[in-house]
This record gives sequence, structure tokens and C-alpha cells, in this order.
Amino acid sequence: MSRFFSGKYDKLVPYTPGEQPRILNLVKLNTNECPFPPSEKALQYAGEHTRPLNLYSDIEGVEVRRALAELCGLRPENLILGNGSDEILNFAFMAFCDEAHPAAFPDISYGFYPVFADLNRIPYTEIPLRTGFRVAPEDYYGLGRTIFIANPNAPTGLALTRAEAEEIVKRNPGNVVVIDEAYVDFGGESCIPLVEKYENLLVVQTFSKSRSMAGARLGFAAGSAALIRDLNTIKFSTNPYNVNSMTLALGLGVLMDEETTRKNCRTVMENRAYTVRELESLGFEVLPSAANFLFVRSDRIGGGELYEKLRARAVLVRHFDKERIKDYNRITVGTREQMDILLKNIREILEDMP
Amino acid sequence: MSRFFSGKYDKLVPYTPGEQPRILNLVKLNTNECPFPPSEKALQYAGEHTRPLNLYSDIEGVEVRRALAELCGLRPENLILGNGSDEILNFAFMAFCDEAHPAAFPDISYGFYPVFADLNRIPYTEIPLRTGFRVAPEDYYGLGRTIFIANPNAPTGLALTRAEAEEIVKRNPGNVVVIDEAYVDFGGESCIPLVEKYENLLVVQTFSKSRSMAGARLGFAAGSAALIRDLNTIKFSTNPYNVNSMTLALGLGVLMDEETTRKNCRTVMENRAYTVRELESLGFEVLPSAANFLFVRSDRIGGGELYEKLRARAVLVRHFDKERIKDYNRITVGTREQMDILLKNIREILEDMP
Repeated sequence: MSRFFSGKYDKLVPYTPGEQPRILNLVKLNTNECPFPPSEKALQYAGEHTRPLNLYSDIEGVEVRRALAELCGLRPENLILGNGSDEILNFAFMAFCDEAHPAAFPDISYGFYPVFADLNRIPYTEIPLRTGFRVAPEDYYGLGRTIFIANPNAPTGLALTRAEAEEIVKRNPGNVVVIDEAYVDFGGESCIPLVEKYENLLVVQTFSKSRSMAGARLGFAAGSAALIRDLNTIKFSTNPYNVNSMTLALGLGVLMDEETTRKNCRTVMENRAYTVRELESLGFEVLPSAANFLFVRSDRIGGGELYEKLRARAVLVRHFDKERIKDYNRITVGTREQMDILLKNIREILEDMP
Repeated sequence: MSRFFSGKYDKLVPYTPGEQPRILNLVKLNTNECPFPPSEKALQYAGEHTRPLNLYSDIEGVEVRRALAELCGLRPENLILGNGSDEILNFAFMAFCDEAHPAAFPDISYGFYPVFADLNRIPYTEIPLRTGFRVAPEDYYGLGRTIFIANPNAPTGLALTRAEAEEIVKRNPGNVVVIDEAYVDFGGESCIPLVEKYENLLVVQTFSKSRSMAGARLGFAAGSAALIRDLNTIKFSTNPYNVNSMTLALGLGVLMDEETTRKNCRTVMENRAYTVRELESLGFEVLPSAANFLFVRSDRIGGGELYEKLRARAVLVRHFDKERIKDYNRITVGTREQMDILLKNIREILEDMP
């Protein structure tokens, strides 16, 4: 760091995103992207409806929020858009956490939560997952803390039912509970239907996964109008034009073609089921996933070793060098072709094992 | 605010962006946008070179930084990209200011500076402009504070010479000096050539004005590699994929067509000179502007009254209801046609005055 860098960040360790190496013919299964691009219909809509780019973007994202409100059965004032859901998660840490309202989240979850907490100098507790990497709802009852739960959780893929998540929200009436539903469209149960019932519930979603827009950056949060106003106070004090006009138009185009989104999700879920069967037949332990990735381990090869050997074969998965999960790899579910290349390479690697 | 909103923001007053009313045939001269869209050449390049949107964007913006480095005579490690320059300014407040390094900026300048300071709970001093709204360089010598100077300044349009700005940088070796050059391409002198000379200099620019990309959101900062690393620490702890793939491709397309950027800037400067002459002939006092806007007042009509009367005629300019400048309006320089509509309406308004 430079000698000018504020001492308040002395201990800050930034988030480590999945790598984006420039390897030829890479099968990229390390960042949970959707294997399918946005539909032609969505792209065409965006091309025809993007506001002239020399003018500032719509600061309120009125049209996208209106379409989302319809989809979610909410009103536009229950929704805020972000430059990806990471931005909104950071806003939530800023708005709803402080010394008096520390944060709590599972010890194995989205790696950005502790970074957001450290960045904002918010004390936090990491609540250990139970056996089998299970989030036990009762561990979160009456915590007196602002709670962040990824549901389905990452990198495990395990999901709480809506009823389980609701119980956490209900048992923490004095604190905001943030349910981070980045992966919910691949088989999870969304808490969005609960938004009107609980003023302390904030549901965060992203267009990066099921809606094929990782490279376009669009996320949103749904909550009571009062919570959304708080997040807008942060947004208007940070970067009011946070979502650009091309992304707004594409987001609207994608929302107009929900059919493709649903179809893509079904395909990913089919490919997931196929990959689970194949990996299990190779002796892998595979956690039951409600997300577009699998969390897997094998007695025959270590997590780090499998990661390295796949990488050498231009198949990139995600390995976390962290106690408790270092035997595992997180594998994004891609196209059937990508899964077959993955499986072929895993078979060959296992055959080469002594 | 909700009952969950952190008390640390009790006094936070968000930034007020220029309004975006939905008025038919509006002549919009209130947010200093470029009146010309990105060139066909740039748009075509972007259309053909946008990375598939289902994949995450290039987290380092390698190609845009390389092109910018060439344009600026710097190395890519001297550059960081942002989701607009507001994001980078906020990063700079975060990285380089704290209780021990309070901020300082002119009392009349970009209205976001005090908001960024309040958001990050950074003490700040507003240094009064001298007579004629002049930034006096000597007021900033040896301040012992992190200094933010918009050059040209907003909303006045007045510019420091590079030598004057350099003297401020030189006289504050223990603190970062941020020169915010959002409007520099319309006649100011950039401090980018000084970046290699001073490790405490950070120059912030935007593609929103001269490069017609307000709606696409792209800003950047140039500084020593150490300062840029600090800003990257903040970026990777906030929103690593802050710039989306469409914007990266368009930014590259725009940089490949610098000729159009230069031509647009020349046109705006010609229209500015024309508008100054016409307004002066109507008795207006017009500050000498090095930006794409004019800061004007008249003895014949109050600032608020002129603003309202123009608005009623679908001509939108910017009025700040703030002591010292409330007699003025800030008028974006647009096309010759827009300027003629503005002038025609001002003439009619003045003729109607008692």
C-alpha cells in the first residue's frame, strides 16, 4: 500500500474473485456463470430501446423496477437496482450494521460477507455450519445481529426451505435479515413472497446467474419501502447513476423473455442431475445442490490436487484453500457438452492415480 | 428512514442529482451531458467486441487501460477504471481520508464532495472561493489535508492552469491531492502529464462528458502505481466487477475514435463562445468557462426566477439554491440549435419583465 492509505484498512483483505485466465478452449466452471447468453429476443430489445448513451441513465430504473414488481408481486417502491448484487449487499452492510448492530453469517458462505464487514469496520460473528454443512435455522434465532444468509448457500449449494428462512426472519424482529438469493432460480424457494409480511426482511437477487447477465451487472433487492428508502439514501450518497442505460435496457429485455430464463434454468438443473449421477458413479460425494454448481469431494483424490489436474487440462473449477472445505471443489453446472468434458477429464485423472 | 437504519448516517444528506423530468421536447441543459451520441464507429466496435454477457466482465479492464495508458503516456498500472468517476472519487475519500487525514475542498464546487465525506464520516474543511469565485492556489499550500479540486471547477467553469495545480500538489507532499478533471477536455489543462512526477497526485477523469458516455458509466483515475493499488484494494472489497462488458467495449471503441471526441469538444467550445457573446449582449454576466457549461447571472432577473421561467418553457438549466450562487444558473452548452432555443426563450422572458 502507499504511505497515504488510511490506517483504518490495515487489516482489510479484499475479496478474491474466481480467476479469469486466458487459456485457449478453456472450460470455465469456476464462477457459476450461466452457460447460455441472453436470448436474441432480449438482446434485440436492448439494442432498440437503449436510451441515447450521451444522456445519463434513468437514476431510478423505473421501467425495470416496474417489470420486476410485476414479476415479484410487489410494488416498485419495494425494489432497488444495483450494479450487480454485490453493490447492494455492501449497501446493506453499510445501512443496517454498525457497532450496535453487528453482523452474523455462516462461517462457510459467500466469501464477500467478511470483506464487506471489514471494509465498513463492522464487528461480525461467523456461525459454524452444522454437520454436513447444514445451516441450522435455530442457530440464528434471536441473535440481536443483522443476519446475512445465502440461500441456497455457497459454496455448498444447500438450501433452506422458505419456512425455515421465514422462521429466522420472524425470530429476529429487531434486526434486518438479508436473504441472498443469487442462486435461488435453480431449485430454491424464494423469500420474496414474504417481503410484504416482514418489515425486517431484505431479499437480494442477481441477474448474473439465471438471467445470463454476469457481464452486464444487474442486481436488485426487495424489501419494505422503508428498508428500500434506506438503501437509496446510501446509493444517492455513493453513486446515484449506478446502473447504466445498456444494462437497464437489457434487463428489461430479459424480463420480457422469462420463458428463456425458465428454460435455461431447467436445462441447468437437468445437467446438474446428470453430473451428480455420473460423479457419484465415480465415487464422489456430492452435496445435494439447489444451485447451478456442485460441491464435491472424493476419497481417491484431494481437492487441491483435482483442481490443479483439471486446470492443467483447461478445465477450471473453484477450490477454496480453507479449513473444513479444502477437500472439496465447487463445480459450475454448464452445458451438457461442458459437463461431458469435465467428466471425461475426471475419469482420466482418476485412472492415472496410483 | 426505517428503524433499522444505522445511526451513523443520521446527518447524511444524499447528493441531489439534476432532475430528469419527462417533459416533451425538453431542451435539457442541466446535467452537462455531451449533446452528441457516441460515434457510429465506436458503437459498431462495441457491438462487435462485447464479451459474451453471460460471462463476468474483465475485472481489470485490461484493454481499456492499455488504450488509455497509450493516450495518457502512462503505464496500465497507473490507471484504474470505475463505474463513472463518482465511484472513483468515493474510493479516494475512503482510501486517503480519515480522522487523521481530513478532507479539504472549495466551498463552492462539486456538490458530491461533502456527501462522500459525510458518508465516510471524514471531517472536512470547505475553503471559501476568493472574489469572482476564484480558487486561489495559495489557500491550499501545506494544508495537511487530503485535497479535492475540480479543475475546471463546477459549477463555475473556472480553471486553474497546470502550473497552478502543480504548485498545490508540490506544496502538499504529505497528502494526496485529487484533481477532478471531469470537464478538462473543453479547454482546461490536464495534470495527467504530472502523474509520473508526484506520488501524491491523483487525477480523476470521466467518459461522461467529452466522450458522450454519461449513460454508459465509465470513469478512471491516473496516479502512481502505489495510489492505484490502494484504490484497487477498495474496489476489490466493494464491487470487483464494477465496470460491465458493454461499457468496456464501448469505452475501447470511443478511445479508438479520438478524432470524433476532439471534433465534438471543438464544436461545444464554438457553441460556448457563441452563447457567451449572445448572453453578454443581453446584459448577462458570464464567468469565463473552460468547461461545457456556463455560469451566468443577470441584473434583470433572479437566478431562481429565470430557472423557473425557462423550465415552464421546457428548457431545463441548473439552479443551486445556495448562498453566494443563488443569483446564478449553470447552463450546459449543447448543440447550436439547443443554444438558439435557449437564447430565444431568454430574450422572450426578458422582454416580458416589468
